[in-house]
Amino acid sequence: MKFLRDNWYVAALSAEVTTQPLSRQILGESVALFRSTSGQVTALADACPHRGYPLSRGHVVGDRLVCGYHGFTFDCSGACVTVPGQERVPARANVRHYLTIERGAWVWIWMGHHPTEGSPPETPWLVDVENWSSVSGLATINASFDLLVDNLLDLSHETFLHGQSIGTPEIAETPIEVEVDDDAGVVRVYRHMNAVPCPPFYARTTGLEGPVDRWQDIEYSPPSYYVLHARIAPVGEPPRPDNSDDHAFHMKILYGLTPETETSVHDFWALARDFRLGDDEVSEFLDRMQRAVVKEDVDALNLLEERRTKVSEVSEVSVKVDRGALAARRVLRALNERAPA
Amino acid sequence: MKFLRDNWYVAALSAEVTTQPLSRQILGESVALFRSTSGQVTALADACPHRGYPLSRGHVVGDRLVCGYHGFTFDCSGACVTVPGQERVPARANVRHYLTIERGAWVWIWMGHHPTEGSPPETPWLVDVENWSSVSGLATINASFDLLVDNLLDLSHETFLHGQSIGTPEIAETPIEVEVDDDAGVVRVYRHMNAVPCPPFYARTTGLEGPVDRWQDIEYSPPSYYVLHARIAPVGEPPRPDNSDDHAFHMKILYGLTPETETSVHDFWALARDFRLGDDEVSEFLDRMQRAVVKEDVDALNLLEERRTKVSEVSEVSVKVDRGALAARRVLRALNERAPA
Amino acid sequence: MKFLRDNWYVAALSAEVTTQPLSRQILGESVALFRSTSGQVTALADACPHRGYPLSRGHVVGDRLVCGYHGFTFDCSGACVTVPGQERVPARANVRHYLTIERGAWVWIWMGHHPTEGSPPETPWLVDVENWSSVSGLATINASFDLLVDNLLDLSHETFLHGQSIGTPEIAETPIEVEVDDDAGVVRVYRHMNAVPCPPFYARTTGLEGPVDRWQDIEYSPPSYYVLHARIAPVGEPPRPDNSDDHAFHMKILYGLTPETETSVHDFWALARDFRLGDDEVSEFLDRMQRAVVKEDVDALNLLEERRTKVSEVSEVSVKVDRGALAARRVLRALNERAPA
Repeated sequence: MKFLRDNWYVAALSAEVTTQPLSRQILGESVALFRSTSGQVTALADACPHRGYPLSRGHVVGDRLVCGYHGFTFDCSGACVTVPGQERVPARANVRHYLTIERGAWVWIWMGHHPTEGSPPETPWLVDVENWSSVSGLATINASFDLLVDNLLDLSHETFLHGQSIGTPEIAETPIEVEVDDDAGVVRVYRHMNAVPCPPFYARTTGLEGPVDRWQDIEYSPPSYYVLHARIAPVGEPPRPDNSDDHAFHMKILYGLTPETETSVHDFWALARDFRLGDDEVSEFLDRMQRAVVKEDVDALNLLEERRTKVSEVSEVSVKVDRGALAARRVLRALNERAPA
Repeated sequence: MKFLRDNWYVAALSAEVTTQPLSRQILGESVALFRSTSGQVTALADACPHRGYPLSRGHVVGDRLVCGYHGFTFDCSGACVTVPGQERVPARANVRHYLTIERGAWVWIWMGHHPTEGSPPETPWLVDVENWSSVSGLATINASFDLLVDNLLDLSHETFLHGQSIGTPEIAETPIEVEVDDDAGVVRVYRHMNAVPCPPFYARTTGLEGPVDRWQDIEYSPPSYYVLHARIAPVGEPPRPDNSDDHAFHMKILYGLTPETETSVHDFWALARDFRLGDDEVSEFLDRMQRAVVKEDVDALNLLEERRTKVSEVSEVSVKVDRGALAARRVLRALNERAPA
Repeated sequence: MKFLRDNWYVAALSAEVTTQPLSRQILGESVALFRSTSGQVTALADACPHRGYPLSRGHVVGDRLVCGYHGFTFDCSGACVTVPGQERVPARANVRHYLTIERGAWVWIWMGHHPTEGSPPETPWLVDVENWSSVSGLATINASFDLLVDNLLDLSHETFLHGQSIGTPEIAETPIEVEVDDDAGVVRVYRHMNAVPCPPFYARTTGLEGPVDRWQDIEYSPPSYYVLHARIAPVGEPPRPDNSDDHAFHMKILYGLTPETETSVHDFWALARDFRLGDDEVSEFLDRMQRAVVKEDVDALNLLEERRTKVSEVSEVSVKVDRGALAARRVLRALNERAPA
């Protein structure tokens, strides 16, 4: 499959972008991301037009970026403004500028060679700090994008791969419901586990004891954005008819899926909660737990990709739990067919 | 040359196979080897039919292997017996089972896509612990199988590559006799060094002093099995006419040659002796010595393979000492021509 | 571009060549360099004709080299003189001998498949220890030869890449003059900076204070030899009409550019001065400084090469400071067209 360029992707964690430029490969393109001294995020093609040296190795002076090899200098629109040893600046010396939008912990980028369409997804849980507390991170996986999609769309793996942390036997045993909203371009997978033991990490952070209702509702907007709506509540107390649900605990587990190359993918994650707001001990615990979970995924997917490159053809036997992943693949395939070559 | 699949190969040291599955690549195929709680060795294709995850990353429950990604479960015949989230198990979910036979320190495997022919070679010296004491090990070499065959069939290299341990000047100087038994498919190379100084490692372990008769008789059964019959005895005292030879010291140096990929090979070794039986100090000394010798071979062959990939054509000038290796190549070529594509 | 074989290249630092053979890849060929016990440097093809084992892994006995695998033995002309296990030595067992000439800190080699033409460049500054003190070193760069040529011919990069050591703003700002001597096959680039602040490393080693005249005159003899004539003197005191110039301080910065493979290059350097002769403290300081400068170049060129392999086409916008490098490219292209296939 080719890259789906005309989309918004997460390019970086907000905290990664500073006046010290960052080099990041996105959809096979090297991008230099930096903050001017005024705080504005800028993304430029990470290659000086002079001799190809990575601009990310240069340094920021005010709102300009100076190449670290021969000193070609660029403003935040990518225009070359200074060339050493001469007055005239050749017009060919400009570099590509990418549009970026910063939303809470994530910086989004438009990778299209066509004009921007729409806006990045709203992620209120990362922005509304009055009602949500969040942690976030990034792991880059040496596996192709589609293996990460498979992983996230079939949470039955939590029981086995993450059995020491978030996984419980009920996840693999509970049937799922799958729904594809073709108009909105969204795949939804529902898994409602009622009257199940409270997993230890929820018990520790919510204070709930004994059996609970645990819901996991996936909302995947191909290609680049995924949110898992997790709900944990006392048994038999669903949301009220007016949709209010303040007797439950909610967690939003967000993923930004950004292909790095054809065989590697940036796995941006964020984990927001509506309880124990601002409690650093809980934040640190959840951050540590999620990093461990992501590491298990990274190890598994790295291994799968490594195997896939060795073996000419991998057989695949799909079962009921795979319906979410299969639906996501169909949507991605359709996007791919419609995408410009 | 293609892999000679319809043969028995050493797959693992017996001690390597436990209830914690082992992943081993053999003739380019990934195999998961494990011991059920009853002690039986099982070998299955190391890829879950569901999504290709290595079964060797799973865990053994009784005599079943549970995949570590989504929990597909297999019995010791490779039949899938459980799939998460549903009752029915699709027949396509079975994995290939490989026949294995455990003989002393080595586990043999049948890699053929055709029914088993014959049995693995008898290795009484690893099994008859009343009369033989042995040590064993494995080194995997980043060099193709044929470089290991060359190495083992021309022991004149002991004088130079292993000059600090088992090599003496006489080995390179003494002419060899070569014999090919086409019916049995065996290559034999004899090197009888009479009235030569006793090499230090034999002096230390046998107590012999002064000159000795030192015989090295290679018996290579292509492709996968090699035994060097080493005999050391007082000068001028050959085996008696009735073949009894208890005035001599014997060592059997066994090699299992198992291609891992087209450019790497597992070098299984074992070293059995009929003297100082059960003497741990001698066993440890010989184990240490043999590991050092094998490491010298590994380094040399890794280097040769590395060179070979860089250079388009390597010239080769063969001399008398190469006759054993050249005979082995002829037999291997013939096996290759007869082998199914 | 193909390798320009019919040329002299620096093969090794003199100090690297000992009775312990050295393996060095030059223009894609593996060469074993060693010193016989009489001190003579010998260079042979680094592959035993028997089974291709690197001769550099063998050992020197007198003026002979013994292969470390099976003991084939060669004299300093590359003739095989001994084969183990037999009297007769096959004529095909000889290896290629390369002509070498040792000049001060550098050992030159003729890599041509044709007879030697001319001699290696004279480098009096490395040989005449009465009047010059020098330090020298080697860095191997994972970048192709042409990236090193670009780097050395455009010293405006000193201002940015080496801004912490040898670079000052004046280098990038001062216009250059470029001259190509087609008959001699030399590219010259002049950069005369008059009445500029004395860079700290010159102030420290010469004792000059306040503004100075600083000249950088490049003389590049493609493909393999480069010397930068650096002159630092009190303001307004050029060399006298009789060319005497003893009121100035001179430094010769020599580079031997020796392709290792198509994508890597040996960067031999030497730094000779005509002041503070024999002063170890100054030598150590300059050695340390130059190693740091070379490391900055190595890091930059490694990165450029890495980028170049990822990106299909790197755009290039040349400006005035590039005229030296562009002239060098033209000469190299011409040499390439004339070179045998």
